[in-house]
Amino acid sequence: MSLLHTIFLIAITAEAMSGAIMGMRRQMDLFGICLVGTVTGLGGGTARDVLLGHYPLTWIGNPEYLTFTVGASLVTAFVARHLYRLRQVFLLVDGLGLVAFTVIGCDVGLGMDAHPSIAVLAGVITGIFGGLLRDVLCNEVPLVLRRELYATVALFTGVLYVVLLGLGVSETAATLTALGSGFLFRLLALRYRWQLPSFTGEGIRGFD
Amino acid sequence: MSLLHTIFLIAITAEAMSGAIMGMRRQMDLFGICLVGTVTGLGGGTARDVLLGHYPLTWIGNPEYLTFTVGASLVTAFVARHLYRLRQVFLLVDGLGLVAFTVIGCDVGLGMDAHPSIAVLAGVITGIFGGLLRDVLCNEVPLVLRRELYATVALFTGVLYVVLLGLGVSETAATLTALGSGFLFRLLALRYRWQLPSFTGEGIRGFD
Amino acid sequence: MSLLHTIFLIAITAEAMSGAIMGMRRQMDLFGICLVGTVTGLGGGTARDVLLGHYPLTWIGNPEYLTFTVGASLVTAFVARHLYRLRQVFLLVDGLGLVAFTVIGCDVGLGMDAHPSIAVLAGVITGIFGGLLRDVLCNEVPLVLRRELYATVALFTGVLYVVLLGLGVSETAATLTALGSGFLFRLLALRYRWQLPSFTGEGIRGFD
Repeated sequence: MSLLHTIFLIAITAEAMSGAIMGMRRQMDLFGICLVGTVTGLGGGTARDVLLGHYPLTWIGNPEYLTFTVGASLVTAFVARHLYRLRQVFLLVDGLGLVAFTVIGCDVGLGMDAHPSIAVLAGVITGIFGGLLRDVLCNEVPLVLRRELYATVALFTGVLYVVLLGLGVSETAATLTALGSGFLFRLLALRYRWQLPSFTGEGIRGFD
Repeated sequence: MSLLHTIFLIAITAEAMSGAIMGMRRQMDLFGICLVGTVTGLGGGTARDVLLGHYPLTWIGNPEYLTFTVGASLVTAFVARHLYRLRQVFLLVDGLGLVAFTVIGCDVGLGMDAHPSIAVLAGVITGIFGGLLRDVLCNEVPLVLRRELYATVALFTGVLYVVLLGLGVSETAATLTALGSGFLFRLLALRYRWQLPSFTGEGIRGFD
Repeated sequence: MSLLHTIFLIAITAEAMSGAIMGMRRQMDLFGICLVGTVTGLGGGTARDVLLGHYPLTWIGNPEYLTFTVGASLVTAFVARHLYRLRQVFLLVDGLGLVAFTVIGCDVGLGMDAHPSIAVLAGVITGIFGGLLRDVLCNEVPLVLRRELYATVALFTGVLYVVLLGLGVSETAATLTALGSGFLFRLLALRYRWQLPSFTGEGIRGFD
């Protein structure tokens, strides 16, 4: 679906920018910035494909995707200090990317005849593992495991998409519904600072 | 072997609980806790299968395992503060899981006609990589690389199992012997705080 | 090519030593030191093969490589405090290993009929991911993403090698030229402390 592919290209660009900025915060050099940017943009699909045994990986079959992520990282390195005003735009694109990645990941899982729950999980992994690998490379506890509803948006989008397809809804309608609902969910979560409960494990010893 | 499978299910549950508690200590939200729990319970077998090219992964072929790890993580999140009294039980189950994971991993390696040393390594990876990935996600130097005999128990169990099979011992006898001896070794290591020597690298410069 | 294979064996030994020393700095025990050493020596090729779907992995097909990395780690653990005087030798061997890993990685990529850019990337991944995984296990922001020209040397070596082969140069000539030029580049980068520009992302908020 062409809309989805366009959103995909915008999303890997936006995610690469987020990775590049995180790399800059760690005083990385230009190579490190490009690598972290690329891992952030393409790491989710890579993790999904390695776990599913789905070869060749997206960016190995389509090396031109690397020019998007490397290009976005390079541009970010030089203009990042002027990006602050784009913060709102960035959050929108990032939310759109999250739901697009999720739908694409579900499609890959379904295309391999995986169990529906695995297809949903393939979508969630595609949505969140880029940011997760970025944070591991930057020596942080992954933000996606801690903060406001992000992974939950991916889970909601994936379940909705796979259930709609299972009910016999056309792929186009299911895609548009999942993208729209998931994106709306993300916007509401951002606007009203929705959070999952978190827990403190302080004082619990002996389970390492 | 049915006994081994039962221990496997108990072990992924126990490991998921250990991961969930570590996630709580990092102030993760419910999603993060479930993901770290699942990675801890199923990450060892996943690492082994990805390295061996052994597809589909265990939990992709058997998605019901995910309900064990996610369920255990959710339960842990809500009752963790009452778990302290279970500390001793937990250590027993964790030790049993370690040796069961190891034997299962060796079996996978042997089933792929790998060299015996690789079969042992497949067992060790199955035993320890769940905890290792948990610690990487939680931004810690993996405990399993630092503390009292844990990986060594996996190595001992794996070598014993593969050697017994190589000597023509029946699979049942080899499994029971390896499980029993490995578990006993682990208990003794815990009881008497056995440790491998560790080394300090302070003051050694220039080898990065 | 026999020269390349000899350099490969020397290089995995040297890289394993660097990993072992990093493990010692983290107060790891003997097992941890051997595992980090092995990951450092063989992790680059492993990452490449998993990403390319190139099975069996090098060390699974050739378990004897593990004796090199484990042996080097064990020796390092016991003699590390006397290694300081070998610092210069180590840097030479490490640089030679970097370019040899890169050429070998390019060969694997080309052997799988990957796009030339992917072949170069396969070389770079082979060259740098051992050190990168070492640093992730040791809870560090990977040095290779921050410091003086290292990844850039791999990139230069890989591009040169793949372009020479593309121009019809014989494999032996291309290998020797790439090894020699890359090694010289690395020596000059060390001698004159060449660096890529790095950037500070301080004060840029909202792009996580």
